[in-house]
Amino acid sequence: MINAYAAHAPGEALTPFEYDPGPLGDHDVEIDVEYCGICHSDLSMLNNEWGMTRYPFVPGHEVAGKVAVVGAHVKHLKVGDRVGLGWHASYCNECHSCMSGDHNLCGASQGTIVGRHGGFADKVRAQAQAVVKLPDNLRSEVAGPLFCGGVTVFNPIVQYDVTPKARVGVIGIGGLGHLALQFLNKWGCEVTAFTSSEAKRTEALSLGAHKTLDSRDPEALKAAAYQFDFLISTVNVTLDWGAYLNTLKPKGRLHLVGAVLEPMSVNVMALMAGQRSVSSSPVGSPAVIADMLDFAARHQIEPQVEVFDLADVNKAIHRLEHESPRYRVVLKIK
Amino acid sequence: MINAYAAHAPGEALTPFEYDPGPLGDHDVEIDVEYCGICHSDLSMLNNEWGMTRYPFVPGHEVAGKVAVVGAHVKHLKVGDRVGLGWHASYCNECHSCMSGDHNLCGASQGTIVGRHGGFADKVRAQAQAVVKLPDNLRSEVAGPLFCGGVTVFNPIVQYDVTPKARVGVIGIGGLGHLALQFLNKWGCEVTAFTSSEAKRTEALSLGAHKTLDSRDPEALKAAAYQFDFLISTVNVTLDWGAYLNTLKPKGRLHLVGAVLEPMSVNVMALMAGQRSVSSSPVGSPAVIADMLDFAARHQIEPQVEVFDLADVNKAIHRLEHESPRYRVVLKIK
Repeated sequence: MINAYAAHAPGEALTPFEYDPGPLGDHDVEIDVEYCGICHSDLSMLNNEWGMTRYPFVPGHEVAGKVAVVGAHVKHLKVGDRVGLGWHASYCNECHSCMSGDHNLCGASQGTIVGRHGGFADKVRAQAQAVVKLPDNLRSEVAGPLFCGGVTVFNPIVQYDVTPKARVGVIGIGGLGHLALQFLNKWGCEVTAFTSSEAKRTEALSLGAHKTLDSRDPEALKAAAYQFDFLISTVNVTLDWGAYLNTLKPKGRLHLVGAVLEPMSVNVMALMAGQRSVSSSPVGSPAVIADMLDFAARHQIEPQVEVFDLADVNKAIHRLEHESPRYRVVLKIK
Repeated sequence: MINAYAAHAPGEALTPFEYDPGPLGDHDVEIDVEYCGICHSDLSMLNNEWGMTRYPFVPGHEVAGKVAVVGAHVKHLKVGDRVGLGWHASYCNECHSCMSGDHNLCGASQGTIVGRHGGFADKVRAQAQAVVKLPDNLRSEVAGPLFCGGVTVFNPIVQYDVTPKARVGVIGIGGLGHLALQFLNKWGCEVTAFTSSEAKRTEALSLGAHKTLDSRDPEALKAAAYQFDFLISTVNVTLDWGAYLNTLKPKGRLHLVGAVLEPMSVNVMALMAGQRSVSSSPVGSPAVIADMLDFAARHQIEPQVEVFDLADVNKAIHRLEHESPRYRVVLKIK
């Protein structure tokens, strides 16, 4: 049996929940969960905002732990390996996206918490390909958030060949943004943090931003016209996208990783004048996750975390939902 | 003196207009105009839709002719050379875009008909760098439209490294679209024409489309989900962009070359799910124009044109504005 915490209806408090996972699939592994991050998408799923939550619902898709059992056909992982698991718990491994290394775009992928039970539990299972080994010098306590929040901002750097000579802007300095600042700084870019919070201004500079820009100030945005090669937006609310587009250099890109549900209003002429692009992407493939972990370990990049015991899971959820944690919330499972 | 046709107020008929161009700049050339295409942007400028027209206004930025005079410092062109001139009549040749070969994105470029007199005239002048030689086997009668309409659809193929293995869609089969079909067919792509006109369906197939799709039919669009690597939209009206985005494969791009003035409504989740991009671009640089002319000449790609004498310029404008010419309208100047 697996001992988890589950909600039984949208927005309800999590309570202890035990379930029998059945026999382990030949291509799957079971992980002893040590730590599990809480991500905003856990909250969206908990509240069934995307209409695809199945209850009882066990959140958790930023898992760090050790391999406990491996399926009969699993070769690249063995019992005791330190590993992590992110948004995706399995891929088809056959479609064009999978065969091109873009498993995160697989149409038949399964979310770790979509129709499955996640990592707010002593154990969690996943297809072996979705499970990635941790570098020796990456602490388990901070590894989980890299698997979702981390790769979500690291992946676009890889996908769009952002080079160290780029001037980049990070919009929104929170769970995702504070990792983007660190990655981009170590990537060699000039990094500007867009933030509306004075407190976060100083923190952003300490995290790797070379400059900050007050995103509440339309004049500051206007003065930044034609400054950036790449903007990554981590917020999930509607901004004055036209004002941000105008801060892009010719051939610049505004890339959204925040799940903005409202349609985005885009001025085509602002795109055309500078051959600019708008795009968005979800998490990253296992290969990109592995590269990210290696890069993070080499450069001592870590999410800043606030750790709660699993028994305090509802307190931890409240902290993320209603307060402003610095920056990722992580549950200590055992 | 230069003998031209000009409008003296928004939307007015063109009448004969003579002007003195003054001394020729050291870096400029004067072209004896033989043919000049009429582009939709001539109409937009004629009607001052973009608020930047100066009257008297001489339209014309799809020029084919012969070099008549060269400025003192011009080296790469000589009198008698067969040449063309497109949307841009000069560049700063100093900014980062120019120095990177992206002259078409130069912030200090001058439009051939923006604050200058265009090619509906016996002569027109431009900076030598903006003037590109015609390949020997490209007829002057059809060369003009390649300099604006042609490069506008050719340039994105180059900018985004569209490969011959791509499945591409062309939205809108008119002056731009009928050239896009030809370029993409010879580029080796699988080409689908999106058109709402039954007559154009057959023409599209003869121009190089391998398939057609009825863009009025929401079911047909829905059935084309995840089909295309690249969509190029040549229309200047608002479409159901979400429906088109859904026809893109993972990593696909919807690229607009039509000057859509209304804001575009983009579903961020449709971008995110497939790591898709939306973008737009204006014309192309002289280097890309030269490559396009070479490619067109090698593959016998020509715009289909309807030729009018310069004296019939108002008839020609009416034809483009209110009827459905096949596909570009060209004035024979002399």
